[in-house]
Amino acid sequence: MALLHPDRLFPADAATRAIAQRLYREIKALPIVSPHGHTDPAWFANNEPFSNPSALLIQPDHYVFRMLCSQGIRLEDVGVPTRDGTPVETDPRKIWRLLARNWHLFRGTPSRMWLDHVFEEVFGISERLNEANADAAYDHIDACLKRPEFLPRALFERFNIEVIATTESPVDTLPHHARLANDPWQTARGNKRVVTAYRPDPVVDPDFGGFAANVDKLGELTGENTRTWAGYLAAHRQRREYFKSMGATSTDHGHPTARTADLSAAEAEALFNRVIAGSAGRDDAELFRAQMLTEMARMSIDDGLVMQIHPGSVRNHSPQVLARFGRDKGFDIPGRTDYVNALKPLLDRFGMEPRLSIILFTLDETSYSRELAPLAGVYPCLKLGPAWWFHDAPEGMRRFREMTTETAGFANTVGFNDDTRAFLSIPARHDVARRIDCSFLARLVAEHRIDEDEAHDLAHDLTYRLAKEAYRL
Amino acid sequence: MALLHPDRLFPADAATRAIAQRLYREIKALPIVSPHGHTDPAWFANNEPFSNPSALLIQPDHYVFRMLCSQGIRLEDVGVPTRDGTPVETDPRKIWRLLARNWHLFRGTPSRMWLDHVFEEVFGISERLNEANADAAYDHIDACLKRPEFLPRALFERFNIEVIATTESPVDTLPHHARLANDPWQTARGNKRVVTAYRPDPVVDPDFGGFAANVDKLGELTGENTRTWAGYLAAHRQRREYFKSMGATSTDHGHPTARTADLSAAEAEALFNRVIAGSAGRDDAELFRAQMLTEMARMSIDDGLVMQIHPGSVRNHSPQVLARFGRDKGFDIPGRTDYVNALKPLLDRFGMEPRLSIILFTLDETSYSRELAPLAGVYPCLKLGPAWWFHDAPEGMRRFREMTTETAGFANTVGFNDDTRAFLSIPARHDVARRIDCSFLARLVAEHRIDEDEAHDLAHDLTYRLAKEAYRL
Amino acid sequence: MALLHPDRLFPADAATRAIAQRLYREIKALPIVSPHGHTDPAWFANNEPFSNPSALLIQPDHYVFRMLCSQGIRLEDVGVPTRDGTPVETDPRKIWRLLARNWHLFRGTPSRMWLDHVFEEVFGISERLNEANADAAYDHIDACLKRPEFLPRALFERFNIEVIATTESPVDTLPHHARLANDPWQTARGNKRVVTAYRPDPVVDPDFGGFAANVDKLGELTGENTRTWAGYLAAHRQRREYFKSMGATSTDHGHPTARTADLSAAEAEALFNRVIAGSAGRDDAELFRAQMLTEMARMSIDDGLVMQIHPGSVRNHSPQVLARFGRDKGFDIPGRTDYVNALKPLLDRFGMEPRLSIILFTLDETSYSRELAPLAGVYPCLKLGPAWWFHDAPEGMRRFREMTTETAGFANTVGFNDDTRAFLSIPARHDVARRIDCSFLARLVAEHRIDEDEAHDLAHDLTYRLAKEAYRL
Repeated sequence: MALLHPDRLFPADAATRAIAQRLYREIKALPIVSPHGHTDPAWFANNEPFSNPSALLIQPDHYVFRMLCSQGIRLEDVGVPTRDGTPVETDPRKIWRLLARNWHLFRGTPSRMWLDHVFEEVFGISERLNEANADAAYDHIDACLKRPEFLPRALFERFNIEVIATTESPVDTLPHHARLANDPWQTARGNKRVVTAYRPDPVVDPDFGGFAANVDKLGELTGENTRTWAGYLAAHRQRREYFKSMGATSTDHGHPTARTADLSAAEAEALFNRVIAGSAGRDDAELFRAQMLTEMARMSIDDGLVMQIHPGSVRNHSPQVLARFGRDKGFDIPGRTDYVNALKPLLDRFGMEPRLSIILFTLDETSYSRELAPLAGVYPCLKLGPAWWFHDAPEGMRRFREMTTETAGFANTVGFNDDTRAFLSIPARHDVARRIDCSFLARLVAEHRIDEDEAHDLAHDLTYRLAKEAYRL
Repeated sequence: MALLHPDRLFPADAATRAIAQRLYREIKALPIVSPHGHTDPAWFANNEPFSNPSALLIQPDHYVFRMLCSQGIRLEDVGVPTRDGTPVETDPRKIWRLLARNWHLFRGTPSRMWLDHVFEEVFGISERLNEANADAAYDHIDACLKRPEFLPRALFERFNIEVIATTESPVDTLPHHARLANDPWQTARGNKRVVTAYRPDPVVDPDFGGFAANVDKLGELTGENTRTWAGYLAAHRQRREYFKSMGATSTDHGHPTARTADLSAAEAEALFNRVIAGSAGRDDAELFRAQMLTEMARMSIDDGLVMQIHPGSVRNHSPQVLARFGRDKGFDIPGRTDYVNALKPLLDRFGMEPRLSIILFTLDETSYSRELAPLAGVYPCLKLGPAWWFHDAPEGMRRFREMTTETAGFANTVGFNDDTRAFLSIPARHDVARRIDCSFLARLVAEHRIDEDEAHDLAHDLTYRLAKEAYRL
Repeated sequence: MALLHPDRLFPADAATRAIAQRLYREIKALPIVSPHGHTDPAWFANNEPFSNPSALLIQPDHYVFRMLCSQGIRLEDVGVPTRDGTPVETDPRKIWRLLARNWHLFRGTPSRMWLDHVFEEVFGISERLNEANADAAYDHIDACLKRPEFLPRALFERFNIEVIATTESPVDTLPHHARLANDPWQTARGNKRVVTAYRPDPVVDPDFGGFAANVDKLGELTGENTRTWAGYLAAHRQRREYFKSMGATSTDHGHPTARTADLSAAEAEALFNRVIAGSAGRDDAELFRAQMLTEMARMSIDDGLVMQIHPGSVRNHSPQVLARFGRDKGFDIPGRTDYVNALKPLLDRFGMEPRLSIILFTLDETSYSRELAPLAGVYPCLKLGPAWWFHDAPEGMRRFREMTTETAGFANTVGFNDDTRAFLSIPARHDVARRIDCSFLARLVAEHRIDEDEAHDLAHDLTYRLAKEAYRL
């Protein structure tokens, strides 16, 4: 019995399913456009084998280890590296068995679907993971990873990825992208295959670990005096140009809130001086992030980089886990997020600028129908990113369409983002999105709300065209 | 191929659809009761032809032009009138073609359904709008509008409207309603066909443009000294009586929040004095609106007008658009809205008064199951208005029923409001509501949660009886 | 025609329904585990007949009388007892007729389903209640209640209840549980059948009526000086042990918010001193409740009682109703509830403690996908209680699963709570939960998101195993 049913995620109703099948058939083989994610550019630059099944599929996947942790399994036992020297499990086979023994926990979660897809489509495994077959699965995957057809570039091509964006800090020198720039593989099919994106949080967020040092490093990289407001802004402009030369078409902003500000130049400079002097309190830090979104919008109008705003995560909720394991360990919890007031200063200033394009994301689904769809449904500069993070799953994607389409339509959305560091799961994630979009469209057709020819057009838009256009790829 | 499928909006599941068809068959021809809306009473009083297709169907429809705007089309090019002298497109045919060229943007939106209904049911067009047929459609509709059977009264009768409420300001002298009062058409079928509703925002909201002048005008109209609290209240009472003589059975309150207050007479008078002197700040303005809801409730207990509260819109979000185009240009964005604390002062005072009836609306769907259904499910004076504005669409209506019925039942809701200035879309909007309600009821029957005879009763209630009773029509 | 269709609440789609039927068939006869509720332990200790149909089924049921109240029926006429001496209807037959006359109001509500289940399954009535058959139904039920097979213990066994928890205050001496401890019926099937739960709100919440007197009573019962912080805490520990001896495995906390605090011992003591001196303001009262959740967590780590937190109800919204009828009269209205910040102090302190187990509930459905599932999906001490109160109904339960499963899975939920004082409705409520869970699982199977053998496992977990394990029963 296969792990993946050909009709998975399609509606149960036979008539609607038949429509979904027809829609999906036309778009399932379209290339993957991955305009926002967190894969490691070194993989594509160096094209070296992945190390082992656990290091590839379990240890870096916060969806996976957070579920294990929720059921009382210590992160140390999953081999999540510690920064305080606490010893962790180092035998990848033991970690693999731990996952197999707890595989039932993932029933009904996207991790289960993504991993099943990886097992079957990438590695040809067709038996549900369990304790009895855990070792065999491990050995099989491990053996595969040593073969050339499982090298990063081979998988990239097998996955039919047209373009993928990674995400880097302004103080990253982009060595892997630079190396790719001189590699014929990068443009063998025409445009660049691997591009970067400008994520300035480390030099924009005063609460980011090492902020001041990062700003100094930004100065070193650019030759600007980033201890002055003018030099700091000039350094951003310079790095943005460099990122553009490495293929970047977008910036990304992961702030705790969506707050923006539009201070006078003098106020902004004074604020920067307090912030860089380390004398800024919580309010100043928030105001600085807010002002910087507006500064970034101003630069985007000039250089054409599309802005992505990913707000609303209370990061590192557990100080114990942060102390032992560091950032991005599954303890980021969403909070309520306001957009209608938060974005107003930026929109008051630049909301009607034809060259500006901002893609909004949310972890607070209540904002879909109340704020985001009404905003994106009228402001020419605003578009809605797809269901994000915890909501990047069938039910979450369905709610996204149900709560945004009537007000914002489809054209104010931007297709799918896989937003992942789990490279092997990328085809799985795109496939889920394609199936859910086809299912939503099929329901509209079955309920005679659109015609089937329109649904075919839209399925193509949602799968391919919107992502290319919205991200200017 | 027709634009409208006879089974549109019914559930895809065949058994459920068959139930929905049976329910709908019994209620589809019931008269339209339109207890809240924004049509122009001049149309019915003067019965003059509508001017042209674009002036009728595009330029005044904020749902339509906001979507075009969101995709970078300038409101000037849609012919939306400016107040700062900026020239706008004046050729209605060019505006029509603009819509036709962008018709795909409306896929999945209620505008598409409403306009398709108008095209097919009102004008007999059965081909989907596109650039190629745009001119023919324009010419056909334009020709129709010149014929007597497309005059406002003829359409009113063809639409089978039993009664429609318009919405007017206290300083409106209601000349069209007065003219109708002497016209046999107004009562040819018994009760009045066109009634007004009392919307005091311009004289109740200190932030409303021209507030002080409006209050003075209220004084002139009533002979009361509206610069005093007592005179101001007396003027309201007098105008409410006048509105009642013009058929009004309801008031309507479009405040930024649902906040109410219950000040002592002395506090209220002092507040009024600050407000009318122009020395009120933001807090005073909000408090005055809050107090006035309670004052309006007090008057409603005396004169029997039903209160409608439509809170939660952040109006005129873009100052640029407000400056150029004025109010109601699609830039009103919902915000989070609290009811449980906001309404408490009013409810503490009058919540158990048998004569009081308040219909609550929301743009914040999170309040449906959390606050509104629990409040309306216990307070005898509270009822829930239908899914409003951005939520007046199939998915929004479905969520309204799914999130309110288990706690508030059906009897604490009030049927449908079209709430529109787009007269021709009224049958379309009521038809959508009827189909969605029948679909929801059909699901309850199919899941054996109610019996089919009960669903028939309820379908009739939701279509006709509840609106008549709740609005005391 | 029967009141209850065998396929009620299953999805209409035939293929999905067939799966739901198969799942339900395997679990419908499993014993009822009722780990949280409000039945009267005197019923089981004394085993005396219930008095009459209205006193049993209407007068104590706030779901029923709040709906009647919402439609203008006075609570006095429903026989709800007053505390201010206002006379109320005392003829149970008249009260019964009132319900029968208004039976249509309950269409689509859970009360209708629960009562229909009671009528048919408990009393063998198969005709829908109406005015014509009201007296016959009354007489039939009344006659039944006089028969031995309708005594509380007989019904307990007929309902196949394995264990039921009641909820008591620390100052309750638990006389009925003590009596049961010496009654062979209590352990005739092995473990205790009726257990208590520790609900300390009356001695933890400074805003609770009679707080200071309750704390004094706590001192008398324990011999501790509860006017000191140390004595107060020691008294809690002592009462928790006593409750454990009466079978308690859990505590329950019904605070207005989910706020927690982690004060130093000195700060906590000073706060307690202010609170017990009656000099605490609103902020102190809230802070004290917050600190006490953390104190209770500390005690739970020691004694193993599972914590339940039921936050977010604005209790006694109408002061008029509170004055006349007292607490718990249907006028408790949910408000917005934050968890991500509120729980942080407690979680920062004890969030990774392996012995701690906290079950979170909400009346604010927006927290399901935004806060609760992400929290429970990573913190080992957190689990999610089922859809609560207004949401304990088919649509609410469905939303609970749809909005929590993808992030928290099933294993971080705890099965069903009936949470009721309406003893006869307990089988109805569990049956609704079982049917909705089977329907949700059936959809996952039909959409090929899990396999059917997994769904069978999960149906068993959700019905039985998770409740036993999560509540340590």
